[in-house]
Amino acid sequence: MMASNTGGQAPVGNPPSERTTVKRMPHRGVYDRETINAILDEGLVCHLGFTLDAQPFVLPTIYARDGDQLLIHGSAASRMLRSVRSGIAVCATVTLIDGLVLARSAYHHSMNYRSVVILGTAIEICDRTRKLAAMRMIVNHVITGRWDQVRAPSDGEIRATMVLALPLNEASAKVRTGPPIDDEEDYNLPSWAGVLPLSLDAHAPVADPQLPGGIPVPSNVRFYRRGMLPGIVAK
Amino acid sequence: MMASNTGGQAPVGNPPSERTTVKRMPHRGVYDRETINAILDEGLVCHLGFTLDAQPFVLPTIYARDGDQLLIHGSAASRMLRSVRSGIAVCATVTLIDGLVLARSAYHHSMNYRSVVILGTAIEICDRTRKLAAMRMIVNHVITGRWDQVRAPSDGEIRATMVLALPLNEASAKVRTGPPIDDEEDYNLPSWAGVLPLSLDAHAPVADPQLPGGIPVPSNVRFYRRGMLPGIVAK
Repeated sequence: MMASNTGGQAPVGNPPSERTTVKRMPHRGVYDRETINAILDEGLVCHLGFTLDAQPFVLPTIYARDGDQLLIHGSAASRMLRSVRSGIAVCATVTLIDGLVLARSAYHHSMNYRSVVILGTAIEICDRTRKLAAMRMIVNHVITGRWDQVRAPSDGEIRATMVLALPLNEASAKVRTGPPIDDEEDYNLPSWAGVLPLSLDAHAPVADPQLPGGIPVPSNVRFYRRGMLPGIVAK
Repeated sequence: MMASNTGGQAPVGNPPSERTTVKRMPHRGVYDRETINAILDEGLVCHLGFTLDAQPFVLPTIYARDGDQLLIHGSAASRMLRSVRSGIAVCATVTLIDGLVLARSAYHHSMNYRSVVILGTAIEICDRTRKLAAMRMIVNHVITGRWDQVRAPSDGEIRATMVLALPLNEASAKVRTGPPIDDEEDYNLPSWAGVLPLSLDAHAPVADPQLPGGIPVPSNVRFYRRGMLPGIVAK
């Protein structure tokens, strides 16, 4: 993907299934679970695909990884989640954009990225204890340690939330890193070539206008960055 | 989406079709073309959904907006593009993440974001002149003015590329902005609350190790940012 001369996206499994085997640029396919986990833990939003009446829908949603499954949540009234809960096939994709790859020819332009594609069917988590634990993991995936800094959900809020789990057994990663790869005869062109790094960065927190004075910005907000390891911050 | 208490994603049309009407959080649905265009022009990557043998796939890919259509490209050998070219229903989704919305309760956490969902079927662009123009728009969408700084594609490279156009007539946007909305009784809790802004930012360019000395970093690389208007930079 992401390039004039590439198209597909790759899978990982143990081993990869036929339908998750990276088709385009197979050298970019990465099949180890550690790579997949690291991408899922750094990503903030997945794009969840499902098909209704032969029409695919792709909607962004937050998530968390819990071991060998992806947790997704939303309103119990959500069309998306009600559809996915019914056991239909879904695809959840997480993409991290790492940079623009600027080559000497238009054709060899590309991007540096890390992505994971997960195929499967989701299962609703109904047990109250497991559901609450999943909700906690999702909040803490978005920002480490946040759950313990805020009011926990009421029974009504728990009921109003639907949580689904998607197993990671049919998942694959695809990664591109490094400088552009130009045609041999293009290396003497006078074009600047290289990589422009990109990342999703946090900026100065904006306090709620209704926040009373004297409440400091907690360190997990002040020093926020994606890819932050659990336990580095909080308090 | 993106919140403990929301789920769906919204459509825009003129007027919105039944299947693109924002279901969850309808007040977040935005239906004017200018909003849709601005989101598409700022986004770098779309997530393209298509269904094969009842299995949805969601793959990230770069794109450009050309008036009332989205241009997508890739290898002529790509499984994704060959599938989409066959006229099957697709969904292309672009999501911009603007910030974490940190409420006083876990339940009211959310994200500020802008997203566009496009439903439709894509048409291949075969005419050489139109195809080359589309390839130019895609490169310049990723980085303004880049096309004229690099070697144009050869005939073979043009043939090896497939370009598809997806009409925007069934598109919708969904936008959340502003501070958290907490339950009235939670405003006196001692939790810090507010928004942590996030954006996809560029960092110092990394020259290709094989770049000869004396080639300066062009201004469209040096001052790169998303949402940059065409014509601001280049040269």
